[in-house]
Amino acid sequence: MTLLMNPTEELTGLGAALRRTLDGEFAERRAQARANFPVANLHRDPEQDLATARQWVLDRLVEVGRSGALASGVPTSADDPGDVTDTVIAFELMAHGDLSATIKSGVQLGLFGGAVANLGTAWHHDTFLADIASLKLLGCYGMTELGHGSDVFELETTITYIPETDEFEVHSQTEEATKAYIGNAANHGTMAVVFGQMQVRGRSYGVHAVLVPIRDDAGQPLPGVVIGDHGGKGGLLGIDNGTLRFERVRVPRRMLLDRFGGVNDKGVYSSPLANANKRFFAILSTLVRGRVCVAAAGGIAARRGLSIATRYALQRRQFSAPGHPDGVLLADYAIHQRRLLPLIARAYALGFAQNEVTASLARLYHRTDADAEQRQLETRAAGLKAMTTQFANVALQECREACGGAGYLAENRLVQLRADADVFATFEGDNTVLLQQVAKALLGDYAHIWGELKTVDMVQATARVFGDSVLERTSATVVVERLIAAARRQPEHTTLVDRGWQALLFTERERHSLESLARRARKAGKKFDALNQLGDHLLFVARAHLERITLEAFIAAIESCQDEQARPVLEKLCSLYALSSIHSDRAWFLEHGKISTSRSKAIGAEVGALCGQLRPDALALVEGFGIPAPWLGAAFLDD
Amino acid sequence: MTLLMNPTEELTGLGAALRRTLDGEFAERRAQARANFPVANLHRDPEQDLATARQWVLDRLVEVGRSGALASGVPTSADDPGDVTDTVIAFELMAHGDLSATIKSGVQLGLFGGAVANLGTAWHHDTFLADIASLKLLGCYGMTELGHGSDVFELETTITYIPETDEFEVHSQTEEATKAYIGNAANHGTMAVVFGQMQVRGRSYGVHAVLVPIRDDAGQPLPGVVIGDHGGKGGLLGIDNGTLRFERVRVPRRMLLDRFGGVNDKGVYSSPLANANKRFFAILSTLVRGRVCVAAAGGIAARRGLSIATRYALQRRQFSAPGHPDGVLLADYAIHQRRLLPLIARAYALGFAQNEVTASLARLYHRTDADAEQRQLETRAAGLKAMTTQFANVALQECREACGGAGYLAENRLVQLRADADVFATFEGDNTVLLQQVAKALLGDYAHIWGELKTVDMVQATARVFGDSVLERTSATVVVERLIAAARRQPEHTTLVDRGWQALLFTERERHSLESLARRARKAGKKFDALNQLGDHLLFVARAHLERITLEAFIAAIESCQDEQARPVLEKLCSLYALSSIHSDRAWFLEHGKISTSRSKAIGAEVGALCGQLRPDALALVEGFGIPAPWLGAAFLDD
Repeated sequence: MTLLMNPTEELTGLGAALRRTLDGEFAERRAQARANFPVANLHRDPEQDLATARQWVLDRLVEVGRSGALASGVPTSADDPGDVTDTVIAFELMAHGDLSATIKSGVQLGLFGGAVANLGTAWHHDTFLADIASLKLLGCYGMTELGHGSDVFELETTITYIPETDEFEVHSQTEEATKAYIGNAANHGTMAVVFGQMQVRGRSYGVHAVLVPIRDDAGQPLPGVVIGDHGGKGGLLGIDNGTLRFERVRVPRRMLLDRFGGVNDKGVYSSPLANANKRFFAILSTLVRGRVCVAAAGGIAARRGLSIATRYALQRRQFSAPGHPDGVLLADYAIHQRRLLPLIARAYALGFAQNEVTASLARLYHRTDADAEQRQLETRAAGLKAMTTQFANVALQECREACGGAGYLAENRLVQLRADADVFATFEGDNTVLLQQVAKALLGDYAHIWGELKTVDMVQATARVFGDSVLERTSATVVVERLIAAARRQPEHTTLVDRGWQALLFTERERHSLESLARRARKAGKKFDALNQLGDHLLFVARAHLERITLEAFIAAIESCQDEQARPVLEKLCSLYALSSIHSDRAWFLEHGKISTSRSKAIGAEVGALCGQLRPDALALVEGFGIPAPWLGAAFLDD
Repeated sequence: MTLLMNPTEELTGLGAALRRTLDGEFAERRAQARANFPVANLHRDPEQDLATARQWVLDRLVEVGRSGALASGVPTSADDPGDVTDTVIAFELMAHGDLSATIKSGVQLGLFGGAVANLGTAWHHDTFLADIASLKLLGCYGMTELGHGSDVFELETTITYIPETDEFEVHSQTEEATKAYIGNAANHGTMAVVFGQMQVRGRSYGVHAVLVPIRDDAGQPLPGVVIGDHGGKGGLLGIDNGTLRFERVRVPRRMLLDRFGGVNDKGVYSSPLANANKRFFAILSTLVRGRVCVAAAGGIAARRGLSIATRYALQRRQFSAPGHPDGVLLADYAIHQRRLLPLIARAYALGFAQNEVTASLARLYHRTDADAEQRQLETRAAGLKAMTTQFANVALQECREACGGAGYLAENRLVQLRADADVFATFEGDNTVLLQQVAKALLGDYAHIWGELKTVDMVQATARVFGDSVLERTSATVVVERLIAAARRQPEHTTLVDRGWQALLFTERERHSLESLARRARKAGKKFDALNQLGDHLLFVARAHLERITLEAFIAAIESCQDEQARPVLEKLCSLYALSSIHSDRAWFLEHGKISTSRSKAIGAEVGALCGQLRPDALALVEGFGIPAPWLGAAFLDD
């Protein structure tokens, strides 16, 4: 395999091999995208005021668009379905620079463009997609409302069919119906995809989306459109988030994005999906690409932070010690290794899981006959989005603190990364809500199978279905099952770095917690007070599930790695990820008799030992993240 | 006790009683300070650019200064020793508004003024303190150097006595010697306290501090002074942090702050402290007030965030449910309770510990005969600074996320609080370094006692000294020991809310981990590689120690609470704090045989139950934090 390399970048051999493995099946395409990415205005001046930042970000978007690095993969007509992998990779590359520009590209191409592509039909595609891809038509994604952040089902905006004029009337019924946090709304958007309750002749058909022009050519709000500006935020200052209200705004009938339901020329509602719930979820399923993209961007943000903090730790000395008269390198303190290396291991693990979700998205993107797989993809994309963005925030904060006062200076980039990535935990689905959805999806599999079973039969049923639909294996299936089977015989007598034992514990954590959740949920029935008490349990199950598929993705990646230098390093890194995860939950494993107390203590020691063993490879490990050093843009790093 | 109340504030009876308890022995003074605090320009417009922010903060400081709410307690001459409690309380009040203004007041009065007051002698006091207190003379605290953030002992700046002219020459020997992150340096400071290595006639006397004018009346750097501007930061944009370099800058001999050592008029070095190490620590001991203040500000920042998030949770509904047709209040979700209430409990706990440290600071501030107590105060101030500022960052992030997208808007104040408080983890001593110092101080007590003992004798020795110098009790001594003694008989048969059992576990966690650390440290000797492996253990011991003194402060506060309505709430809150802490470390308790697995599981359930029991008091609990609702300034809160 030949890879196009950024010509200014010098990599260690190990770093290059790790990068190839982490890039996975997309190695060639990612390398090419890196080589072609315009890096001249990668970072935004953090001292810009709001207005300057917003304009800079728009200019940057146009610049990247002109280079061809932005719109690749966006469909430009109904005949060109586009390549979603290119879109995801382009988004990843954007995330190596200013995150406002990244997210604004996501609002424009992923949300606004994606809604037109996926919820619209031929006329919408032919009329709008080319201008959306070329940034000539800038748009908003009007889903979230003030009163209904996470609860899309309850949106209050109405889209009412007016037979007299063959139009739709878009109306914000209440103050709470105001569309909020909308990117591109405050300054740049001239059109919005507006989600609301479809009303036809007094009957409600649930949530649909309609295109509504919001600004004239001079940039002024159109009649009936009230636009607010959210002003300052915790980060992403370059995005013009704002509010949108509609006071009985009329649009022609064809502006409705009618793939999953619309009004025909006789003024009658019709939909290819008879079931209103199915329609709702079909409309929401278009969120999956956005979640894959946000997870990708969160992962890249974490890698950037870890690259900066690790490279700094490899040059910064503090406190002299016997044998270290010039001071000890931060990277040589065991305590510092323990701050950064488990995060690096986790960044790899989540990267491998991300590759699998991206591949799955590409495989299913244009298929309509993939119900079960599609549902699994939605669950995993939602879950991985939550896991990776939460990880990004934790990792970036740790990196900031690990760089001390220097980490707090804007010129070293960590604080802006941290501030910008913060809201990734909230948008495209609040992490807490998403994780609960993941657990409920897993429970749903159970309920489906157990509908007619009594509680006493559940354990047997679990044993039967486990490894089947509930816990369908990723590509590492055979390997993992063989490893687990070997470890299961004498779990306490394997070494701690035994992959089978690690996988066994991950599987047991998921199976056991899911089973007990199923029992509790069954008992709770539909009583709010009882269900309310399950919240923490839901989160635990979701995390246990996502940790397992992440470990299995890591195992699959090692299986596919042929490089003799990289493979043993990845083996150690995988153990560090697995044991750190077990270590975090070791109380649970102890409480449920899955490990002994002496083994529990040994796990902590082994995590420390692995950090020490990986210390010599620290530079190569961050090289593997795929971020050319000059792109980091941190002032304090040596050239 | 009569308390002056902010007349615009309406409090529940329980809220008022909780506030009185949390304010503790300073209740009256704090209430008075609240009533007199100028709140007109409490919050800074988050959209200000750097230059505007810096000027706004200076103006705000002058405004508060004029009101008399700022300088109270700062000594204005050698004859007026000032009241350090007033200073801490004034700083707390400042922390209810813009944190840049707060920290800038700390730089000016605490660090710069404090150094002149505590390291200087009569001439310095009479010449400078009045102008410092009135903000006529703005100054910098030049300790940290680029190359030596945490390692003050190794500072490279030199302060060389020049006998020919009877002057000191201040010189930045290397690039690394550049003073960095210095507040007031980039714009406003006209003088700096500069720390450096004192050289007299070719001999080195270690770190001393000297006053150096840095700017002329026109604001231009004086000859030989090179000033840099750090520009944008992760927060605290209103503080003009910068760098200072000195190129053989001469100042008259009397500019040396010579309380702990100086050069007499014969050009001979002399010091009241013969031992160079003692001198170094005497000079550093002046940091203690700053650490008490930063911990206080971190605590207030966390309370502000928790007040905002809790009040929002009491008005915001999301998702309908059986029996909740209009949506469930966020505060009624068990999962949301579990996000906020343990943090509220911890905020109270740390507040009680903070009261004790403040009282201790006030007691010892002007005493020179309090070696052991002074050392304990330094350890606790350092440790509490680390615990509280770390807590503040965790709590503020949780609050931001718990408020969803609304939490990310600047107008709701959480993001700026979070960004500003971030660096509290780093300045006034890096938290990781401070916690290691705490553990080493505890070990030092052991080493002192065990100097001549063999390892086999250590356990017996521990039993003897425990509860004595190593773990000296706070004011709750008698109560706690009685409670523990009762619980020790049948620890697994007490209820989980038994205070004695909780205190026993806290004590055991500290004792056991400290003992094993002592053994490991003894074995490691002075070998870097072996000592390097103890880092995590040091951190665990420090936290265990600080958690124990925090619990004991909570117990003492309950003992002193006479209010019949508040006391049972505080009892629950204390259990929630204690059980949350045990729950976080339950793996350790399991590993060391201190709890059974069934009890471990029960602890998690009890934490959830306590959250539910405290839910009805949520409003009163945040009222108790002492922040009048109108001061919160969050746009989304109902009036």
